Amino acid sequence: MRKIGIIGLGHVGAALAYTLVTKGIADELVLIDRNDQVAHGEKLDLEDTQAGLTTHTQIIIQDYWQLRDADIVVIAAGNISIFDSGVNIQQAELRVASQIIAEAAPQIMLSGFNGILLNITNPCDVSTTYLQRLTNLPHQQVLGTGTLLDTMRMRRAIAEELSISPKDVSGYTLGAHRKAQFTAWSTITVGTQPIKHALAQHCTDLVALEKAIHDRAWQIIDGKGFSSYGIAGATITLIQAIYSDAHVTLPVSSWNTDHQLYIGQPTMIGRTGALRVVDIDLPQEEQAAFNHSASYIQQNLDLMVASSPQ
Amino acid sequence: MRKIGIIGLGHVGAALAYTLVTKGIADELVLIDRNDQVAHGEKLDLEDTQAGLTTHTQIIIQDYWQLRDADIVVIAAGNISIFDSGVNIQQAELRVASQIIAEAAPQIMLSGFNGILLNITNPCDVSTTYLQRLTNLPHQQVLGTGTLLDTMRMRRAIAEELSISPKDVSGYTLGAHRKAQFTAWSTITVGTQPIKHALAQHCTDLVALEKAIHDRAWQIIDGKGFSSYGIAGATITLIQAIYSDAHVTLPVSSWNTDHQLYIGQPTMIGRTGALRVVDIDLPQEEQAAFNHSASYIQQNLDLMVASSPQ
Amino acid sequence: MRKIGIIGLGHVGAALAYTLVTKGIADELVLIDRNDQVAHGEKLDLEDTQAGLTTHTQIIIQDYWQLRDADIVVIAAGNISIFDSGVNIQQAELRVASQIIAEAAPQIMLSGFNGILLNITNPCDVSTTYLQRLTNLPHQQVLGTGTLLDTMRMRRAIAEELSISPKDVSGYTLGAHRKAQFTAWSTITVGTQPIKHALAQHCTDLVALEKAIHDRAWQIIDGKGFSSYGIAGATITLIQAIYSDAHVTLPVSSWNTDHQLYIGQPTMIGRTGALRVVDIDLPQEEQAAFNHSASYIQQNLDLMVASSPQ
Amino acid sequence: MRKIGIIGLGHVGAALAYTLVTKGIADELVLIDRNDQVAHGEKLDLEDTQAGLTTHTQIIIQDYWQLRDADIVVIAAGNISIFDSGVNIQQAELRVASQIIAEAAPQIMLSGFNGILLNITNPCDVSTTYLQRLTNLPHQQVLGTGTLLDTMRMRRAIAEELSISPKDVSGYTLGAHRKAQFTAWSTITVGTQPIKHALAQHCTDLVALEKAIHDRAWQIIDGKGFSSYGIAGATITLIQAIYSDAHVTLPVSSWNTDHQLYIGQPTMIGRTGALRVVDIDLPQEEQAAFNHSASYIQQNLDLMVASSPQ
Repeated sequence: MRKIGIIGLGHVGAALAYTLVTKGIADELVLIDRNDQVAHGEKLDLEDTQAGLTTHTQIIIQDYWQLRDADIVVIAAGNISIFDSGVNIQQAELRVASQIIAEAAPQIMLSGFNGILLNITNPCDVSTTYLQRLTNLPHQQVLGTGTLLDTMRMRRAIAEELSISPKDVSGYTLGAHRKAQFTAWSTITVGTQPIKHALAQHCTDLVALEKAIHDRAWQIIDGKGFSSYGIAGATITLIQAIYSDAHVTLPVSSWNTDHQLYIGQPTMIGRTGALRVVDIDLPQEEQAAFNHSASYIQQNLDLMVASSPQ
Repeated sequence: MRKIGIIGLGHVGAALAYTLVTKGIADELVLIDRNDQVAHGEKLDLEDTQAGLTTHTQIIIQDYWQLRDADIVVIAAGNISIFDSGVNIQQAELRVASQIIAEAAPQIMLSGFNGILLNITNPCDVSTTYLQRLTNLPHQQVLGTGTLLDTMRMRRAIAEELSISPKDVSGYTLGAHRKAQFTAWSTITVGTQPIKHALAQHCTDLVALEKAIHDRAWQIIDGKGFSSYGIAGATITLIQAIYSDAHVTLPVSSWNTDHQLYIGQPTMIGRTGALRVVDIDLPQEEQAAFNHSASYIQQNLDLMVASSPQ
Repeated sequence: MRKIGIIGLGHVGAALAYTLVTKGIADELVLIDRNDQVAHGEKLDLEDTQAGLTTHTQIIIQDYWQLRDADIVVIAAGNISIFDSGVNIQQAELRVASQIIAEAAPQIMLSGFNGILLNITNPCDVSTTYLQRLTNLPHQQVLGTGTLLDTMRMRRAIAEELSISPKDVSGYTLGAHRKAQFTAWSTITVGTQPIKHALAQHCTDLVALEKAIHDRAWQIIDGKGFSSYGIAGATITLIQAIYSDAHVTLPVSSWNTDHQLYIGQPTMIGRTGALRVVDIDLPQEEQAAFNHSASYIQQNLDLMVASSPQ
Repeated sequence: MRKIGIIGLGHVGAALAYTLVTKGIADELVLIDRNDQVAHGEKLDLEDTQAGLTTHTQIIIQDYWQLRDADIVVIAAGNISIFDSGVNIQQAELRVASQIIAEAAPQIMLSGFNGILLNITNPCDVSTTYLQRLTNLPHQQVLGTGTLLDTMRMRRAIAEELSISPKDVSGYTLGAHRKAQFTAWSTITVGTQPIKHALAQHCTDLVALEKAIHDRAWQIIDGKGFSSYGIAGATITLIQAIYSDAHVTLPVSSWNTDHQLYIGQPTMIGRTGALRVVDIDLPQEEQAAFNHSASYIQQNLDLMVASSPQ
């Protein structure tokens, strides 16, 4: 029996719940939102959609205690409206995230939960670090989606440039999700070729490509007002890797012992969470970008801790 | 090769597109919305979500001409914001729907499209009738989702009352989707028993149950602000019935020759659309409710035609 | 985490394992066969097939102890070669089944298994009764596929006769799977009509239809030498009903307190197995056929017990 | 609408048909076998299995003319019994394959078929070359599964050695499927590392690993008597790449202009078949192995042509 909890039913949490239901991945789904009516509405809509399925997922709402035997709990909280608020977005986001985590963490732990905690809430690396601190779960049981979606987007941007399939692009986007992430060009191969060789044949400008990768996320948010299906898909990939004990390496936000914080790095995923960080030798320039990311996360973590409810 | 078009990328159109992509049902998806940025944003988000799939759907946007060889085109236009407008909702909805259909119909037909046209836009039966009139496609190639979702909700409401699976409830909700629809109690069986026998054992009040069924839709809209996953699921059921030439009977909005309009009635669905209306003998009371529905649709159709752009 | 065991890797067991893998239903699959090489070969073939999937199922072989925490164990033993043996098939089948069950039951229970035991082995009702007796698991945790596949075949045969979808046919085939099963015509409806009304319009002969239903199974065995995909599909339906706690009524072989044996009857299925037998009033003629089935099963059960290894 | 044909309903063809049905990939499936009863039996079994699905696939049998508008036709003929024949297996296989192809090719073409022809029949590269010659379809519309399954097996063997996921191994097995195939070690990377670096850390012997890869196929055949699920899965991957116009590079048997025959090489797959051969610079040793493969195929092609029916 597979049991999954989702805390936060905004665009992302709802899309994730819908995907878990339509794909028949979860046998039981525990949905929790600050707004009772939202949770109740989603429950009914998710039940309605099951009429045409061969699988059935039981939807339980607003009950933290039901997380006690969940395999995985996803924190998909956040408030997209801060983008329209006109104030300092970054500070607002930090404050919202710290409140949500400070509220959810003790209730999750009170249930007796001892599974895998997956964080989507932004700023992802900062929030994941804070979440692990407040829950005190073993580091390997706490993960953030980190640069997983960014990696997928990077692969697609490169694939479109070269008129190939994203499945033939490998390598990672690393570091702090969004603001301080970077394409680790040294890790990227196209088919059997290093990226530089492949791009040279197409006269592609690396700087322009890097910009195209970064713009992609904002085009989605500018266009539809938020981003939901991409991150839901990335989270499904993570959930399936956990259930199947896949030992697959994914660029998620995991605990970095050097920097003592969560950051986007290649991590082997299995049933018990982050099995290990996969060591890769980055060239000096990319290592510097990684360290810069770590500083950026630390800085924001300090801000989050400072702004956290007493 | 399966090619599907969706016109209108609100909550319903987007959820439908997402489902067609994640289930690998469509090989090509043509998305059209009044807002270019929305279409572009959805395209990118839907591409991002494919990183974790074994199937790939090509996303084409804002190009009516691409509908020329589509198998199915879904009209999912509408404007949920009218619910907050404070004005006469019904009139506003009719005006919005007639504008959208008057705009879309000629462009769909100009492409040379000759597949199945599925309408979700509310008021569903009125809009579907108007859509057939403007496209002049054969009646069997035009369908509305009608009371399909309502039927699913009714079955679930009964199932919950009896602590059984909705799969063990059969029978239909018929008539004009939403305002004038009715549960055709005479058609409903639970397992091998007529509904009245089954309910009698549970001392269930039919009137209370009917109310619970009707309230369900509004609890979703009140809760999450709109309804999307249920109707997306019902549309998927219809799309799969068409592709697989299923000859399955579903309560959708199809052409009624007596009343000369589209109305929710049991209809056999196959590759060429509505193969035939399935004749059922309704008791006098239910037949009256059906006729009342037809009048209600006709009345609103007159209003729509009157309010249509010249 | 979902863990399922399969004992017996003939055509049926292998097809079932393949389906559980390709649909991503099982996270762990424990496969056991009398022949080590067969189990090893299936393991490798099932691993190879996962290259193109987004899910991963761990394949464990030949280890009864791994069943200790399985949710479901399927007994798919049997020996199709007895059909070619020229001897008394029925006796041979009974002997083979009793040996397999006598061998497997104690090893399953020694592991500490306390989940749902699903029996496919023929003669199904007899074997399921014997299996429950030897394992001493609560009656509701032991089930046989019974007349579930036969019901599906009956519905399809009727659907083909009427050029409709099998999804629009409801009702059951009941009794002892194969030899003494019968179509419970009183339970069968087509759309909203009782079967007799529907057939009358098509001038269909009930006796000819009954024969067509019975012949279907043998045409498969005569044609491909065995039957595998239909029964695998029926078993998947059962497994999904269990995981999702569906409370759906299916005609499986469940414990009948009157007759003190397992027999094909409408049974509500949920996470804990057979939640309850669903009472239906059969007309006298069908009740007689049901009682005859029960006698037939009892008779063969006596033979099986007599022929069981000491 | 998706329409697929399968010629040959042995273990592989049947498993492929079953997968296309249970995954809802095909709307229509045309099955052809030398034995009418086998085709009829499979049809019924495949229909039975659909009772629990939300999709429906129409099964048409023994009608070459139905291939006229098929998107893809798979040739899965062959006769596993030749492995038990005690005679020269290689010659027997060539003779069986040439007969099947000589019989099927003209009938396929007579239907007016102009889609993608996928060959699984062994010896794969030889048969694919012969098939293209007899059908005279454009080279890009004819493909063999080649070393696709071998590549998947190689990746899994390496993954198991290193306790990682096969998804983190990239690179190809190339050349003539089975007898003269070779692991193109120069193309293989593990995560972001070349294989040699990765293996060095695990003290793995390359020769032992190569042997383990080769043994894998034979362990399956020795174990279960044949291999079916792995090749069915690989074929599904190819079919999905074609329908979705994926532009993905897969090591299949495609036309090599230098050698004027079909051989396993990295090939970009899209809706029109083999879009192009992907050029890779092999080191001298591997290029020699590739050329040896080409000679091996040519030699057997000559034998096949010589043994072909006049």
